[in-house]
Amino acid sequence: MQANPVSLSDSFIEELRGVVEQRLSTSAAVCLQHGKDESWHESLPPGAVVFAHSTEEVSEIVKICARHKIPVIPYGTGTSLEGHVGAVYGGVCIDLSEMNEILNVNAADLDVTVQPGVRRKQLNEYLRDTGLFFPIDPGADASLGGMTATRASGTNAVRYGTMRENVLSMTVVMADGRIIKTSSRARKSAAGYDLTRLFVGSEGTLGVITEITLRLYGIPEAISAAVCPFPDLESAVDTVITTIQCGIPVARIELMDEVQMKALNAYSGFDYPEQNTLLFEFHGTEAGVKEQAELVGEIAADNGAGEFQWASKAEERSKLWQGRHDSYYAAMALRPGAKGMATDVCVPISRLAECILEVRKDVDAEKLLAPIVGHVGDGNFHVCFIMDPDDADEMRRVEGVNRRMVLRAIAMGGTCTGEHGVGIGKIEFLVAEHGEALSVMRAMKMALDPDNIMNPGKIINL
Amino acid sequence: MQANPVSLSDSFIEELRGVVEQRLSTSAAVCLQHGKDESWHESLPPGAVVFAHSTEEVSEIVKICARHKIPVIPYGTGTSLEGHVGAVYGGVCIDLSEMNEILNVNAADLDVTVQPGVRRKQLNEYLRDTGLFFPIDPGADASLGGMTATRASGTNAVRYGTMRENVLSMTVVMADGRIIKTSSRARKSAAGYDLTRLFVGSEGTLGVITEITLRLYGIPEAISAAVCPFPDLESAVDTVITTIQCGIPVARIELMDEVQMKALNAYSGFDYPEQNTLLFEFHGTEAGVKEQAELVGEIAADNGAGEFQWASKAEERSKLWQGRHDSYYAAMALRPGAKGMATDVCVPISRLAECILEVRKDVDAEKLLAPIVGHVGDGNFHVCFIMDPDDADEMRRVEGVNRRMVLRAIAMGGTCTGEHGVGIGKIEFLVAEHGEALSVMRAMKMALDPDNIMNPGKIINL
Repeated sequence: MQANPVSLSDSFIEELRGVVEQRLSTSAAVCLQHGKDESWHESLPPGAVVFAHSTEEVSEIVKICARHKIPVIPYGTGTSLEGHVGAVYGGVCIDLSEMNEILNVNAADLDVTVQPGVRRKQLNEYLRDTGLFFPIDPGADASLGGMTATRASGTNAVRYGTMRENVLSMTVVMADGRIIKTSSRARKSAAGYDLTRLFVGSEGTLGVITEITLRLYGIPEAISAAVCPFPDLESAVDTVITTIQCGIPVARIELMDEVQMKALNAYSGFDYPEQNTLLFEFHGTEAGVKEQAELVGEIAADNGAGEFQWASKAEERSKLWQGRHDSYYAAMALRPGAKGMATDVCVPISRLAECILEVRKDVDAEKLLAPIVGHVGDGNFHVCFIMDPDDADEMRRVEGVNRRMVLRAIAMGGTCTGEHGVGIGKIEFLVAEHGEALSVMRAMKMALDPDNIMNPGKIINL
Repeated sequence: MQANPVSLSDSFIEELRGVVEQRLSTSAAVCLQHGKDESWHESLPPGAVVFAHSTEEVSEIVKICARHKIPVIPYGTGTSLEGHVGAVYGGVCIDLSEMNEILNVNAADLDVTVQPGVRRKQLNEYLRDTGLFFPIDPGADASLGGMTATRASGTNAVRYGTMRENVLSMTVVMADGRIIKTSSRARKSAAGYDLTRLFVGSEGTLGVITEITLRLYGIPEAISAAVCPFPDLESAVDTVITTIQCGIPVARIELMDEVQMKALNAYSGFDYPEQNTLLFEFHGTEAGVKEQAELVGEIAADNGAGEFQWASKAEERSKLWQGRHDSYYAAMALRPGAKGMATDVCVPISRLAECILEVRKDVDAEKLLAPIVGHVGDGNFHVCFIMDPDDADEMRRVEGVNRRMVLRAIAMGGTCTGEHGVGIGKIEFLVAEHGEALSVMRAMKMALDPDNIMNPGKIINL
């Protein structure tokens, strides 16, 4: 993948040192680590890593890179899943993890401004005493800069939306080093093009995000979670559809298939029925949570569900969701020594059962091990292939199932990625998904980054 | 404003007739009507109006205009408020009102695809039997194309969001006539730049919207509305802030000041106390609505509110909200023969009371008549100047108050327009609001419309 990485001259490195002093590394180990995320994609190491401490420093670094036409790759925690941080053409990685200050909590306005290296758990710990929280939870303890850049979502999105709905404003360093603010802190605005939404999900290809203002929410008075097994996949998905249609404001509604439930029990020490299962969480007042739970209980019973197992205490809930978040590791433990490849598609919910069933059939026909989990309230699901990367035949079958799944999702009116992003892993599917619209994206990229130095090789191939 | 409108040659008009046949007019009356919206801005008539019937026709029309570098101005119902439809440089108005078919309701997915000329009331009447509704309500019975193009919002936005949150996808004809789809129908996607949000609020300056897929919601089981007077503005706004902070999912929370209440009583035959007043609407289950109302009642009482007057029947509610929507006409009736100028700013809610009070003081100091109403849950409010446009001194004072209000909102971390849009009325304030970011918007405009033919003279002056 990394054919001809650009070489960085000594004088160029010296220029960078003029900005960041000792906070620069060209060591092979540091570069290798910064070229790789949590996915199966191999490391594509940058030629140097700088650890930035301010927007102004990022601006200076980008200006130097722009002058020399050297690629710039922003880096947060490296928890992305489609090779987003790989230095496809080499260049300079800007590690933003040391820009990790929470700058300003506006409790009355329910917003907070943070530096991009702040992690989501750090933010919620900091907020605890204010009675507020930030709901987006992609599982990993990702940086908020990375979550913004990849349009992350996760288990809470069905109620609170994704990063798209929860970023109010950003400070961004453009490809020529200019510093802009994408919008004001107002809750809504009709004053020109939506730059905030343009940079959310742009994966570092249009600029480096150096400050983010996020929406916050009051911690609900009551929270309750439940696990419920279903006789088959359709009945579980039908329960989801009816719940959403009735406007019941569930906070989370997650699917784990029978293979994943087996993995969960073994890995996390649970004793749940090993059937297709929904995990629910309800947020609201005491009475509201009770009412939501009763309504969903009725819908589930109508669909032949088994018994609800409740987790009303914080520790029980935390164990349950940790189990859900650990599904990747639990799945890998099913086959010691194997590697995992977590995929991601999203379809209109009316096609969800059909889509998952066809994938399941394909997985079984190809004799692969691949549990399925999903943020089913959004129509978003993941297949986690547990595979041996050294087995060429198995890898070919994995790739075939994955490709057919993506094309099937697109054909059903869905998208090749609901939340993982494009990175290098999904770039080939954008033509099938967007057609002519891809040329509009290309025109925007060329207008804002004419020398193609911002995370080149991601989203758009110029 | 319209110094040198481009002239349209006979052969050019014949080319257009080749596409739309008899559905073309160059009559002065039709052109004058299409150059004007509901605002105080004078008509800037196009040289011709075509009535399009399909995406393909729009594409052909735009291709002809692109070849001749003739401006294209999309037109829906003409209910915009900042001169959005004015043909600043002349050109061809594409009237989309006859593209008014509801194409596809996906009840299971809670979405609908419409042509841009469908009006919001038409859509909700069509949907009634499905148990679903489209919540965005800017007051006017606007077209959904126009609402999308101007990023409309209105009274329900505090609960359901604005057009930004409720447009899932669009078909757009670009400046060179290419037809694109901005995204799939999936609820969320991380597959590239957010073209949907780029076109929402682009006011026809980047392309012509010819199809829109919108989110729908289940009609709530119970709806209840209430009117409540407050001793002063701060106590009303404090009630709003606490309600929002507590996460109570009010569907509407509207402010009308004492001047507007006087106007409302006189115009709509109500008998409400003529004090600063909040109008609430609650959506949910029977029990949920009751609980929300009780919680808000307690918060209001803590802030010294008067008694709630309830409107639980559909007819009472409809009369109440009609009164709210008629506030513009009610205000004008305060001074027969005068004209109205409805403004629009939005600030972080923590600054809302301060901002409104300073505006009120300024209005009074300048001896103007100007009731204030607001979508206060969002921090968005309107001042409606009731003025004599022929009184130069009064107009100068109106302009001064308006300018100071806008700059005050921006200085408070807000925006020059929460929902009316830029049009020609707010274009001069974008530098103050966006600074360097305006050059990013300009680069995008130049990339997607290099000959500046799409609604030129709006948002960005090239």
